[in-house]
Amino acid sequence: MISLPAIPPLDVDAPQAALARQARLTKPAGALGKLEALSVRLAAMTGRIDWLPTRRAVVVCAGDHGVAAQGVSAYPQAVTQQMVMNFLRGGAAVNVLARQMGARVTIVDAGVAADFEPHPNLIRAKIAPGTADMTLGPAMTLEQADAAVQLGQDVLGAEIERGLDILVVGEMGIGNTTSASAIIAAITDIDASQVTGRGTGIDYAQHAHKVRIVNQALRSNYPARDNTLAKVGGFEIGVMAGLMLCAAAARVPILVDGLICTAAAMIAAQFQPQVVDYMVAAHRSIEPGHGIALSLLGLAPLLEFDMRLGEGTGALLALPIVEAAMRTLQEMSTFDDAGVSGPV
Amino acid sequence: MISLPAIPPLDVDAPQAALARQARLTKPAGALGKLEALSVRLAAMTGRIDWLPTRRAVVVCAGDHGVAAQGVSAYPQAVTQQMVMNFLRGGAAVNVLARQMGARVTIVDAGVAADFEPHPNLIRAKIAPGTADMTLGPAMTLEQADAAVQLGQDVLGAEIERGLDILVVGEMGIGNTTSASAIIAAITDIDASQVTGRGTGIDYAQHAHKVRIVNQALRSNYPARDNTLAKVGGFEIGVMAGLMLCAAAARVPILVDGLICTAAAMIAAQFQPQVVDYMVAAHRSIEPGHGIALSLLGLAPLLEFDMRLGEGTGALLALPIVEAAMRTLQEMSTFDDAGVSGPV
Repeated sequence: MISLPAIPPLDVDAPQAALARQARLTKPAGALGKLEALSVRLAAMTGRIDWLPTRRAVVVCAGDHGVAAQGVSAYPQAVTQQMVMNFLRGGAAVNVLARQMGARVTIVDAGVAADFEPHPNLIRAKIAPGTADMTLGPAMTLEQADAAVQLGQDVLGAEIERGLDILVVGEMGIGNTTSASAIIAAITDIDASQVTGRGTGIDYAQHAHKVRIVNQALRSNYPARDNTLAKVGGFEIGVMAGLMLCAAAARVPILVDGLICTAAAMIAAQFQPQVVDYMVAAHRSIEPGHGIALSLLGLAPLLEFDMRLGEGTGALLALPIVEAAMRTLQEMSTFDDAGVSGPV
Repeated sequence: MISLPAIPPLDVDAPQAALARQARLTKPAGALGKLEALSVRLAAMTGRIDWLPTRRAVVVCAGDHGVAAQGVSAYPQAVTQQMVMNFLRGGAAVNVLARQMGARVTIVDAGVAADFEPHPNLIRAKIAPGTADMTLGPAMTLEQADAAVQLGQDVLGAEIERGLDILVVGEMGIGNTTSASAIIAAITDIDASQVTGRGTGIDYAQHAHKVRIVNQALRSNYPARDNTLAKVGGFEIGVMAGLMLCAAAARVPILVDGLICTAAAMIAAQFQPQVVDYMVAAHRSIEPGHGIALSLLGLAPLLEFDMRLGEGTGALLALPIVEAAMRTLQEMSTFDDAGVSGPV
C-alpha cells in the first residue's frame, strides 16, 4: 500500500481576515463577485492573505492507453509521442499559454508507448509503454497504479524544491477521455452514455462505439473504490492524482483542467477526500462528463470556453483570474484609507 | 449635429486566414472553443492575424447624475468624486487590475459635481457638474449630449496618438445604473422592472423604488432614437459612446465592461450600428439589464463572475483571454511543422 502525506485542514483565520478586509475595500460589498469568494478560498488553502501565485508550474503527464486499439479516438496512438515532442520543442498550446502566463513546463513520461531522448523539461519515468486494453481486463496492476501515484508525489516534491506557489495539472494521451469517462462512470454510478463525449472530435457513430467500449470496460472490470485507477485508469492519470495529493499536503493550490484532470482529481479524492479542498476548477470543457464530475466534487468552474484540448490549457487561462482575486484583496484601498464614504 | 468618423467594414481576408491557420495547428479542430472564434473575430476587426493587444488603455469616464437625488443608490453622490480621487491615487480595483494587466489608466471628468486639481492621468473636461434629474425632464440638452460624444472621440484620438491596440472602457458615477437601465429600457422596449437591478447593493424596497424612478424618467421624457442620451443618459455615458465610435473607426477592438458600458455601447450603436462589430463583451455582470442588452447587441460575454463593480474591472479581466486567443493562433506549431499526425 502506498504511503501518502497528511493533508492539513483548511486554515480558518486567513479566510476570516480575507472576508473582513473585502468588506473594507473601496467597492460595494460583494461587487467583485466570484473573485471575492475565490480570494477567501485561496486564503483558506494557503493560510495567508498575502499569498500570490508567483511561482507557477504546469506539469503535463503523458501516457498511452491500450484501449486506443478499440478505435475510440480520431487520432492514431502515435500522436501521444508526437505531441510530447511538440511540448519539448515549445510548439503546443500548453507551451504558448505557459509562456504568456509565466509558468514553467514539466513533462512527465508516465507511460508513452515510445522512448524519448533526455531533455531538461522531460521526466522519463515510464511505468510501462502504455496500459493494457481495459475492455479485456485491468488497465494496469495494483502495483503499477501505486507506482504511478508515487511518481506523481515524487515529481511534485521536486517541483516544490524548485519553488512552487500554484500547480497547474495537464495531460496528453490518445484514448484517455475513454479512460476518464470510465473512471467518472465508475465513481459516480452515472451511465456511461451520460459521461462520455466526443473527445478529440469523433463523429456520432464513433461516439456510440466509444460508449459501448466504456461500458465493456466497466463490465470487464467492476472497478471498486480501492482499485478504480488500476482497473480503468491510465498511468498519466495516476501521476496526476499523486501530484494533487502532494500539492494539497504542501498547501499548494491546484488548478484543475478538463475531463481527464478532473477524473484524476476523483482518483485523488478516493485516496484522501480532503485533497479537493485545495482544488480550483479552472474551466468547464465541452465534455459532458466534465461538468458532472466537477459537480460531484463540489467545484464550480471559473471559465466556460467550450474547450476540449487538455494539456492544462484551460487551467492556464485561469491563472490571471487567480492572481486578480488576490491582488484586489491585497492592493485595493480601504474606505478609511481612501476617504471614500460608505453606504448611506 | 455631431460629425462622426466612418467605421470601416470588417476585414474578410484576415479572418479567413485565421480560420485556415486554426485548422492546421496541433490540436483537434475546434478544441480551443471560444478562443478560436475570438481570434477570428479579432482578425476581422484588425485586418491582421499578427495583431496582439500590446498597448492597452482603460479609459474611466466619471460623471454625476441628477437622478441620484431620488435616492436610487446605496451611496451618497460624493462617492463619485471620492472614487475619482481613489483612481488618481491608484487604490481602486481598476488600478489594481490595470497594473496586473499592463494597461495604462486615463480618467475623464465628464461631469462630476466637484472640481479636481490637475493630474497627469486626469482629463478635466466637465460638460456640466452633473446631469439634471431625468425624472423631471431631460438629463441634458442635445448640445450637451453631442459635446459628450465629441469629448469621447477627442479623448480616444489622443489615446491613439499615444499608441493603442485595444481599448477598455470603464466608468464611475453614483446613480448611473439608473440611467443605464432607463437607456436599455428605452432602446429595447423591455419593461423597466426587467432591466433594473440592485446596483451598488440596494435592498428590495429600494429596488422597487428604483424601478418606479426609471419608469418616471421614461414617462417624463419619451426618449427616441435620436435623443436617448440627452433624455435619460449621463455625461460619462456619452463620452464612452464617443470613445467606442472613434475606436471602431480606427479598427481598435473595444472590450465592453458591465451594465453602464453596455448601455453606452447601445448609444454608440444608435449613432452607427457597425460600431458593434468592433466590440468584445468581456463579461456578464449580475445586473439583469446587462445580459439583456448584450443579447440585443448580439454579443456573447466571455466571463461570468457575478461582478457589479464597473470601472472597467470586468473588461480588464478579459485582456489575458484576448491575448491568449491571438497567441495560440500565432505561436502554435502546425501539424506539418511539428510532425504530428492528423486525424485517422
